Amino acid sequence: MPSETMTNPRADRVRDVAKLATRTARNRRRQFLAEGPQAVREALRLDAARRADGKEPAVVELYASEACLSRYPEIAHLAEATGLLRLADDDVLAAMADTVSPQGIVAVCPMLDVPLDAVLAARPRLIAVMCRVQDPGNAGTILRAADSAGADAVVLTSGSVDIYNPKAVRSTAGSLFHVPVVLAAETAALVEAARAAGLGVLAADGAGPLDLDILQDESAARRAGGVQASDAVAAGGGYRLEGPTAWLFGNEAQGLSEAEKALADHRVAVPLYGRAESLNVGTAATVCLYASARSQRR
Amino acid sequence: MPSETMTNPRADRVRDVAKLATRTARNRRRQFLAEGPQAVREALRLDAARRADGKEPAVVELYASEACLSRYPEIAHLAEATGLLRLADDDVLAAMADTVSPQGIVAVCPMLDVPLDAVLAARPRLIAVMCRVQDPGNAGTILRAADSAGADAVVLTSGSVDIYNPKAVRSTAGSLFHVPVVLAAETAALVEAARAAGLGVLAADGAGPLDLDILQDESAARRAGGVQASDAVAAGGGYRLEGPTAWLFGNEAQGLSEAEKALADHRVAVPLYGRAESLNVGTAATVCLYASARSQRR
Repeated sequence: MPSETMTNPRADRVRDVAKLATRTARNRRRQFLAEGPQAVREALRLDAARRADGKEPAVVELYASEACLSRYPEIAHLAEATGLLRLADDDVLAAMADTVSPQGIVAVCPMLDVPLDAVLAARPRLIAVMCRVQDPGNAGTILRAADSAGADAVVLTSGSVDIYNPKAVRSTAGSLFHVPVVLAAETAALVEAARAAGLGVLAADGAGPLDLDILQDESAARRAGGVQASDAVAAGGGYRLEGPTAWLFGNEAQGLSEAEKALADHRVAVPLYGRAESLNVGTAATVCLYASARSQRR
Repeated sequence: MPSETMTNPRADRVRDVAKLATRTARNRRRQFLAEGPQAVREALRLDAARRADGKEPAVVELYASEACLSRYPEIAHLAEATGLLRLADDDVLAAMADTVSPQGIVAVCPMLDVPLDAVLAARPRLIAVMCRVQDPGNAGTILRAADSAGADAVVLTSGSVDIYNPKAVRSTAGSLFHVPVVLAAETAALVEAARAAGLGVLAADGAGPLDLDILQDESAARRAGGVQASDAVAAGGGYRLEGPTAWLFGNEAQGLSEAEKALADHRVAVPLYGRAESLNVGTAATVCLYASARSQRR
C-alpha cells in the first residue's frame, strides 16, 4: 500500500485527470476516465487479464481513498497488483471526477475501441450498431444491454455520441470493459463488410413490415422442425433470426434514416401491444438483441 | 382561435403553472404539467375521450404558441375543441415549463391515478409494479415499456419516485395518459389483492432460481401441446407465463428487498448471456413484460 495520500485538489496531476471530462483532452491523449467501484473493478479485471497475456494495459493511472479500498477487498487486491495505486482524499477524487461523488475511486484508461476488421475476423454472431445515437445515457444502456444479450461487438457510427463521455461510461455499468467497441464507422461500408463476413443485417424500425414476434416464432418452429418454407417466406421474409445478425438502431429523435434503412436486409418492428406509439431506442434495442440471443441459443 | 397572446413571463398565472414543477404544489392542487407536443397530444386525446363519455376532464389549462399549433394540426384541432386554449409566446412557455424548451405547448392536467380496487376489478392480465424505483427517467421508461407491452396497469409502491415529476412525465412519452396508474401501494397488501384477483406474482431478481427463458419455452411448448408436466415442474416451477401476472421490479440500486421477494410466487432472472453482472431495472422490466405479453398473446 502506498503511504502518501494526495490532498491537494489543485495539483497539476489532479487537473490533468479532470481534463478527461472534455472530449478534446480525451482524443488528444487517447485516454478516458472510469469512475466508481463498478466501472473501475471491471477496468482492473480487464487490465489483469491483458497483463497476464502480455498485452497493453487497460488502466494507466489509479486513485482511490482508503475507505473505498477497505470496503471493496477485491478492488484493493486488483489495484495493488497494478503497481499504479495512489491514495487520495475525497476532495482530490471529487476534483478528478465528472460525478459529484466518484465513490472513492477513479482510473485513467487507454481508449478501448478496436478496428471493425478485427471484430469481423472473430466471426461474430451478434452485433449492435448505433446509428447516430446522441444521448450518452442511451448509448451506455444499449452497450450494457448488448453485453447482457451476449453480443460480440457494439458499433457506433460517425455522428454518434462519444462512448468515452463520463455519463456514457457510467451508463455502461462496466460493460464498456467487456464488449469490443468499434467507433466512427461509416454505415454503408460497415453493412457491406458485415454482410461479407456472413452477417444478416436488420434495421429496427417501428414502421417496418416485419414483426419481431413472427421472426421469433418461425425460428422456434424451424428448431422444432415444423415450419413450412412457404409460410416462412410469406410472413417473416425468410430471415433466420437464429443466424448471425447485425442490428441497426437509429437516432433517438429521428430513428434510422431512409438511407440507413435501405442498407438492411429487412426492416423489423418490435410489436406494440398497447397504445404507445413507439419504444425508446434503448428499450427497442433490448427487445431486439434478446430476441436474437434467444433464437441463437435455444 | 383566441386572439390575445400572453407575453408576460412574470404574470401570476404563469407562476402558478410553473409551481407545478414542485411536488408540494402538485399534491396540494392534485395537478401536474404535461410539456411538449407528444405528451400534450396524448393528454388531449384522453381528454376528448373522457368528455365524450361525460367524465372528468384530463386537461384543465392549455397554453401554446401559434407556431406550435401551425406545425401540429391535430393538436390544434384537439386544443380548440377544449375551449381552454390560450396563446402564449416562447418566453411565457419557457417560464411555465420545467424543460428548457417545452416546444411550444404546455398543459395542466388533473392527476390520473386510480385506486387499486378499480384496476383489479377490470380483470387485468399484466401489471407492472415498481417497488421503490427512485429515478424519474427509469420510472417513465418502465411505464412506457409497460404500455408498449400492453400492460393493463402500472403500480408504484410507497417510497417510489413521484410519477408526476416533470422528468418522469417526459420519459413516459405520453404513455402516462394510456395506462392506469396506481400510486403509493403498500407492497404486501398489493400482492395479496392481486393474488385474490387471480394474478400470479413474479419477482424480477437477477439472482432468482428460475430462468425467464425456461418459462417462455415451457409456455410455448404447452401451446404446442408438447410439454411434460413433470418437466415443467422441474425446470419452470410449474408457473404459467401465459397466465395473468403481476411483475415486481425493484429499486435501481438495491433491487427488491428480501421481504418483497418473499411475497412473490417465484423469483425469476433474465438470463445474462454475456459478462454483464446485471441489467438496469428499465431493461429488465422491458424483457420481462415483453416475455409475458408474448406468452399471453401467441
